[in-house]
Amino acid sequence: MTAENRLSINQWSMRTTPCEQFIGAVAAAGIESVGLWRQNVAEIGTQRAARLVQDAGLRVSSLCRGGFLTAATPAGRRAALDDNRRAIDEAHQLGAGVLVMVVGGLERGWSISRVRDTIPQTIAELAPYAEDAGVRLALEPMHPMFAADRAVISTLADALRLAEASGHRSVGVVVDTYHVWWDPQVLDAIAMIGSADRLLSYQVSDWNLPLAPDPLLSRGVMGDGYIDFSELTTAVAATGYSGDIEAEIFNADLWAMPITESLAWVRSRYESVVRPHLVVRPHL
Amino acid sequence: MTAENRLSINQWSMRTTPCEQFIGAVAAAGIESVGLWRQNVAEIGTQRAARLVQDAGLRVSSLCRGGFLTAATPAGRRAALDDNRRAIDEAHQLGAGVLVMVVGGLERGWSISRVRDTIPQTIAELAPYAEDAGVRLALEPMHPMFAADRAVISTLADALRLAEASGHRSVGVVVDTYHVWWDPQVLDAIAMIGSADRLLSYQVSDWNLPLAPDPLLSRGVMGDGYIDFSELTTAVAATGYSGDIEAEIFNADLWAMPITESLAWVRSRYESVVRPHLVVRPHL
Repeated sequence: MTAENRLSINQWSMRTTPCEQFIGAVAAAGIESVGLWRQNVAEIGTQRAARLVQDAGLRVSSLCRGGFLTAATPAGRRAALDDNRRAIDEAHQLGAGVLVMVVGGLERGWSISRVRDTIPQTIAELAPYAEDAGVRLALEPMHPMFAADRAVISTLADALRLAEASGHRSVGVVVDTYHVWWDPQVLDAIAMIGSADRLLSYQVSDWNLPLAPDPLLSRGVMGDGYIDFSELTTAVAATGYSGDIEAEIFNADLWAMPITESLAWVRSRYESVVRPHLVVRPHL
Repeated sequence: MTAENRLSINQWSMRTTPCEQFIGAVAAAGIESVGLWRQNVAEIGTQRAARLVQDAGLRVSSLCRGGFLTAATPAGRRAALDDNRRAIDEAHQLGAGVLVMVVGGLERGWSISRVRDTIPQTIAELAPYAEDAGVRLALEPMHPMFAADRAVISTLADALRLAEASGHRSVGVVVDTYHVWWDPQVLDAIAMIGSADRLLSYQVSDWNLPLAPDPLLSRGVMGDGYIDFSELTTAVAATGYSGDIEAEIFNADLWAMPITESLAWVRSRYESVVRPHLVVRPHL
């Protein structure tokens, strides 16, 4: 992919807009790519959504989300695997080459380190199915404040370790600025993920304060918070990553606006805060 | 220190109890150590607090807290250094061998990696003063959800790196379960900090869900949340750490109880959830 216009709008950045209108508004704004969510696609059905994005000439940078693979019981685990196969089918139908994997959390009494170590084998069970569908599974390290309830993977280096341990070259990693910006090893980890050809998605949003009562909703529009997009974006660009840059921003202010305004706000900040750092400067 | 009775009660675990009553209640409960807070000590003055803990025969496992060294202006930085020298004086007067350092956060527009790299030099300015007072400065990595507003140090490995970069052997690290439990490198980092003779404090509380509206108050009593105290405590014990184990729990339920009940609750959980793992098992 060598698109000049690499901004992608994640559907949950505009989640108050129904699926069909979302696709239409993004295309009308001259944006070329979207990140879709399964439950929002389900409003109109996968086939219809696939047709709409195709007719609009949009790329689908990712489908959110598979995962939640840490069920306590064998039955729960089988159900999770089945659901992930459906997610892979949907990604294939939608033309999304990447399925974002939020791997799941803990039951009380479990050891996080032991749960983490179950991830590679579970991912290995899904990877051949995903490969047959032309879909790459992208492990998403989430901010450590979600380690107990959403994702036992908290750093990029650990996501890379677990992806490699799956034994499948197709399995990769999502770099989401909100989740990883604080990590003292973040720049090295991005370089290593790039070298391993496993950098599958770059998602951007800012870290706003104070935290929202639901911390999932503390994401800010780039430039409104504390993240240095220069360092992170430069590191991503230096790996040779040429995919879309997906704005994934769960933010009540954004959701309260008409979509034309929220798209304009996000695009303007992408252009001023993120895009300038996508240029790879030659070493002198 | 080879005390059998190594539980210490951090003053903010009982913060609704005034300083003098806190010291009295801890001693009356047969607990031998306290972690004090500067602002609570200030209620009665350092001299009087020092006399009370001495008369009660208590150890002072730490004084909270110095730090906030990342001011934007030279004047702000000088004021912070002055305040930290006063904190060192107070630690000395109270007989606390350890001053906990919460190093400070970011202004918007700053790069977290550049701010982190200012820490060793600032700590190096304080360390000789602390050494003269017989006080060790203990860098506290905080949970990454506080990286922007409280502490740019988010992992134990990074705290060790910065302590070593200060050039002072007296500078060390706090291991607080709430802040570090999620870290995939936590066990290796504890071992390295122990090998470097820089493990200065072990603080315990649990990770409860849902997060409290103020995430500082989400700490739970050990056994109520998601942290595996077996792994972490075994790793701390394996370093040879022989200091106190400080229960530092900011929790509204605990604060609403009479102090005799809250002390009994914390001690009972320390005995059942933490203490059994302090025994170092010989390698077979």
